[in-house]
Amino acid sequence: MLRLELAFVPPGLPTDVAVVIDVLRMTTTATALFARGLEELAVVADTSDALELAERTGALLLGERHGVPLPGFHGGNSPLEHFGTDLTGVRAILCTTNGSKAVEAASQAPHVLLGAIVNALAVAERAVALAERSVLLLCAGTNGRPSLDDVLGAGCIAKEILRLVPDAELSDGIRIALTVADGSDRVEATLCEASHAETLRRLGFEKDIAFAAQRSSIGVVAVKVADEPARFRARL
Amino acid sequence: MLRLELAFVPPGLPTDVAVVIDVLRMTTTATALFARGLEELAVVADTSDALELAERTGALLLGERHGVPLPGFHGGNSPLEHFGTDLTGVRAILCTTNGSKAVEAASQAPHVLLGAIVNALAVAERAVALAERSVLLLCAGTNGRPSLDDVLGAGCIAKEILRLVPDAELSDGIRIALTVADGSDRVEATLCEASHAETLRRLGFEKDIAFAAQRSSIGVVAVKVADEPARFRARL
Repeated sequence: MLRLELAFVPPGLPTDVAVVIDVLRMTTTATALFARGLEELAVVADTSDALELAERTGALLLGERHGVPLPGFHGGNSPLEHFGTDLTGVRAILCTTNGSKAVEAASQAPHVLLGAIVNALAVAERAVALAERSVLLLCAGTNGRPSLDDVLGAGCIAKEILRLVPDAELSDGIRIALTVADGSDRVEATLCEASHAETLRRLGFEKDIAFAAQRSSIGVVAVKVADEPARFRARL
Repeated sequence: MLRLELAFVPPGLPTDVAVVIDVLRMTTTATALFARGLEELAVVADTSDALELAERTGALLLGERHGVPLPGFHGGNSPLEHFGTDLTGVRAILCTTNGSKAVEAASQAPHVLLGAIVNALAVAERAVALAERSVLLLCAGTNGRPSLDDVLGAGCIAKEILRLVPDAELSDGIRIALTVADGSDRVEATLCEASHAETLRRLGFEKDIAFAAQRSSIGVVAVKVADEPARFRARL
C-alpha cells in the first residue's frame, strides 16, 4: 500500500516558555501521576540510564518500549495504571523515547511545562503567567514525524491561551493546530484517528485514549525544575 | 504581544518520491515558469553562488531576499513577473532560502518533484506514477517553522493522491494537512491567512496569492534531474 507522509523542516525557536506535548501518552501520564500526588518525575530516554537512576534513588520506575513493559520496571506508561493510588511523596522515573527528545529540544527555554488535553486550561494559565513574550507549543511527534494527537493537544491548549490573551499573535503552526482542534465536541473522535491511537487499541490500551481526551479534567501542570535537565515537579 | 508558536521535531524519512512544497512562492513560481516553456531551473540558496552560476552559464537569474529584488538579478520570485513571456529554451536560476533547504532535505529521495496548489493534480499523478511504496510531501516552511500555505498545498495534493489511490495509508501529518485543506471552496481564504501572505500583501504581491490559490490550473510538474543536486526540468 502506498504510504503518504508529510514532514516539516526542523525548528530551532527561542522562547520564554516551552510546552512539551506528547498526548499519547507521556505528558498525559505525567499529568495524571502528579494529580495523584507524585512529588517529582524524571523523564529519561535510555533504559539503562533509567534503571541505574532508579537503583541509586529508589524511585518508582515506569516505562515501556513499543507498548511492552520493560524488565526490572515497576510499571508501564499508562495514565490509568496507578489510578486511585496515592502517590504523595513518591518520586518516579518515566522512560520514554519521543517525550525525552522533545524535553531535550525544549531545554533552552527558561520555563518548560508538560502539556496535554487533560490539563489544557491549567497549562494555558501557567504558560501565560510565566511568558514575557512567547509560548512555544512543542509537539513531540513519533520518531520525527508529526503526531495528530500532539497537534490536537496543541490546538486545545492554544484555544485556552487565546481565551486568556485574545490578541496573541499566531504563527502558522498554531493556525494549523487550531483548525485540527476546531469542533470542540470531536476531541475524542479526532484523537482516535491518530496512528498511535490505533497502536494503543491493538495493545489493549483503549481506555487510555478516552482518558487522554478528557479536556481540562486535571488542574495540575508539571513544570521543569530549574537547572535540572529533565526533572519535573507539579504546580497546582 | 504574546507570540504563540508550534513546532515539530525534525524529520528524516526515507521515501521513493519527495514532493517539495513551498506554495508562497518558490514551487508556485517554478511551476509557472515551466508552464511558459522554461527548459531548466537551478534552485540555489546562496546569492553569490547564484550570481557566479549565472555569469558562467548565461542563465536568467531570479530571486530576492525578504521581498526585495537582489542587485545583479534579472527578476524576482513572483509567478506573475514573466506572465505572457515565452520562456522556451531558457534556463533560469531561482535563488531562495527556504525552498533550497527543502530541496536539499529531499535530496536522498530517488525522485524529487516541486508541488504547489497550482499543479496539485499533475504532481499527484506524477508522484503516484513514480512511487513504488511511498510519497513524502515535504513542506518547506519559513525559517524552520511550519507554514500554513505549505500544509494547505500538501492537503490539496494529498486529496488528489487519495482520489487516485483511495486505500493509501495516511500518516498523521497527512491527516493534519487534509483537515487544513478541507472545505474545497476556501483554498484562497485559507491561503490568505498564512503569515507569509500578509508579508506579500504588504510588499504589493497580492495578486501572487490569488495566483498561487488556483488549484490544478497548471498541468506541468518540475522534476529533479537525476544526479544533479538541485536542477529541475518539466514533465507535462
